Amino acid sequence: MSTQTALRKSIGPRSAEVAPWIKGKDRRLEVMSSVPHVLSTPVGLLAEQRTTDKKYLFVRNIQDLAEGMTIEPLPLEGWETELVGLIRPSRVVIRGEELLGMDLVEYEMILQCSGNGRSQYRGIPGTPWNQGGVGNVRFAGVPLKAILEKYKASVDPQVKYVTAEGHDLPMGLEKPDFEHSIPVAPVLERSIFALKLNGEPLPGIHGGPVRLVTPGLFGTMQVKWLRRLRFETAESTNFYHATEYRVPLSLLKPGEKFRFTMENSRPTWDIRLMSYILQPESGAKLKAGAVTVSGVAYNDGSVRMESVLVSFDRGQSWQPAKFEVPDSPYAWYRWTTQANLKPGVHEIWARAIDALGRSQPLDGSIFWNPNGYEWTGVFKVEVTVN
Amino acid sequence: MSTQTALRKSIGPRSAEVAPWIKGKDRRLEVMSSVPHVLSTPVGLLAEQRTTDKKYLFVRNIQDLAEGMTIEPLPLEGWETELVGLIRPSRVVIRGEELLGMDLVEYEMILQCSGNGRSQYRGIPGTPWNQGGVGNVRFAGVPLKAILEKYKASVDPQVKYVTAEGHDLPMGLEKPDFEHSIPVAPVLERSIFALKLNGEPLPGIHGGPVRLVTPGLFGTMQVKWLRRLRFETAESTNFYHATEYRVPLSLLKPGEKFRFTMENSRPTWDIRLMSYILQPESGAKLKAGAVTVSGVAYNDGSVRMESVLVSFDRGQSWQPAKFEVPDSPYAWYRWTTQANLKPGVHEIWARAIDALGRSQPLDGSIFWNPNGYEWTGVFKVEVTVN
Repeated sequence: MSTQTALRKSIGPRSAEVAPWIKGKDRRLEVMSSVPHVLSTPVGLLAEQRTTDKKYLFVRNIQDLAEGMTIEPLPLEGWETELVGLIRPSRVVIRGEELLGMDLVEYEMILQCSGNGRSQYRGIPGTPWNQGGVGNVRFAGVPLKAILEKYKASVDPQVKYVTAEGHDLPMGLEKPDFEHSIPVAPVLERSIFALKLNGEPLPGIHGGPVRLVTPGLFGTMQVKWLRRLRFETAESTNFYHATEYRVPLSLLKPGEKFRFTMENSRPTWDIRLMSYILQPESGAKLKAGAVTVSGVAYNDGSVRMESVLVSFDRGQSWQPAKFEVPDSPYAWYRWTTQANLKPGVHEIWARAIDALGRSQPLDGSIFWNPNGYEWTGVFKVEVTVN
Repeated sequence: MSTQTALRKSIGPRSAEVAPWIKGKDRRLEVMSSVPHVLSTPVGLLAEQRTTDKKYLFVRNIQDLAEGMTIEPLPLEGWETELVGLIRPSRVVIRGEELLGMDLVEYEMILQCSGNGRSQYRGIPGTPWNQGGVGNVRFAGVPLKAILEKYKASVDPQVKYVTAEGHDLPMGLEKPDFEHSIPVAPVLERSIFALKLNGEPLPGIHGGPVRLVTPGLFGTMQVKWLRRLRFETAESTNFYHATEYRVPLSLLKPGEKFRFTMENSRPTWDIRLMSYILQPESGAKLKAGAVTVSGVAYNDGSVRMESVLVSFDRGQSWQPAKFEVPDSPYAWYRWTTQANLKPGVHEIWARAIDALGRSQPLDGSIFWNPNGYEWTGVFKVEVTVN
């Protein structure tokens, strides 16, 4: 029995969230299961860490690979990923061992659940992410382009989408398998077979040993435990791609019913521009006088961030924060600003703008959608100054 | 000979700009020919007028209707517009007289050349519009929906675009005729056969007696001297629609060569969000102390404008302007703000943001395109304070 067959036969219990059965099994995974609310921890971990520690990086699996529920890496040996569809030759099998000798490319980049910020919308079921479903990490891997070259594989010009499947299995017999399609252009331009996270072998829980990583896209598109890439002319009609992980093309009223079709909606592909205030946290009690406010901001990496504006008077005036420009266009910008605050209750608002003039709506619920994806509203915290 | 045949036979000299031969023929048209630079007039006409006077409203014709080169209305009697294509019956002829008895709908709305602001881009030929290719007017007409009902015409569900042609003729035998396609949804939802401008019969020069008007779209899509609407499954491949009046889907470097195709570009349909400072004008000399800055802002009308931010210190801080919210979502918002300016040279910047978080890039040249369309940069004026 091959390693893969073994992996696919030994499927344990599953959960839509971090599997509850891992508790007590692995102490490190217990830590991870609290990550979705990392911002409610007192220290503001995201604020402290430019690169989010793998132990604290959020986890969100639609379905699991049983052996993948570990912070340890899984062996590359015996791992196989196949390329099929409109390519020549029509099937290419890439063995994990063969990836080891190839040059790696590293991206510092945002990893963000498209449901991050969902709790800001009203009346939406699903993981109540506040702002914990995001991190800034370094993924390193072998560019798909280099793999195609090595295996002398050519992609038919008619290919419009690449659909990725993992070795994970559906959560029940009646459930559809999870997969996603990505437009072929960014895949050929920058997708990697990621083998490393923050310089170390990619943990099982984060999709190791091989994850398809395309910087600038939402986390759901970064398919874990990569098993197959299909080069096709059309997008997948799979449930998770054609019905879930989509947003309507037109604006809805909060609570409005909507039946998703390929024509009236689009996949949650590109990361939406966002800024977060990480310090102080909402509810903080501060001393009057000079207050430092800091946070992060980012977009899909297609153009640079231009400014982060901060308001201490509910939008009556805005001052630009100072920020560090990261080397990678896909990484977050850490920003900071100061203000003198008098005793009382204050709101602090942050709004980022990028070089395309894309910004955040004051009321993010204008983009209300039934699954609560792509929250991009102006970030607001309330603090009490004594 | 029908009125139409007579019109189409008596074609006079033409020009890509306001026809020079009209000078001296009609004193009012002389006034109009200076409109593109209305902001360089001392009084700031756009600033004074909530609704732009027909005499000062910009003119930009790709080709002319000889009889249309007048500020007077043309007779509706004898005017015919036909509906053809995937409709039942397959051809409907609408006579001008029949429109007279029908209820009119009026839109207060932006009329803007998609090349407005072109002079802000570098190295682009074409009308060097600064900000004079825009106005805020009231168009009134018969909704296309009501016309379809009156003539018991039904549109095939396969129709995706409506292509509009005017009675104007090409500027030479070798030149293609001008036409534009618009997606069927906004056409059926809000297009009118406009018969009036600012409450009076529509002047010939502004497309009378019948102009297709769809609020929220750029001026080029508001086809003058309406002769025919084609209900079709595909967009027109006409030169002016498939090559001109398009912007690339990806960012170009200023000066970059680009070969427009239907796939790599899109038509200049929806008006881009914009704000203008109308007072003071660039180059103005002001007295130190309280300075009032005023202007207008608008978007495509799909959502409300949220704020206009004004900076007197090159983006170091921004203050929100006060603005009047117009009744019509397609009209401009007039805004005003004050600041105390010390002696010296000052830049004043204005940036609008709408409820979707759409804003203006600080450097509008990021959207550089070979024909200089859709300028949307932060508006900047320089003034000297003594």
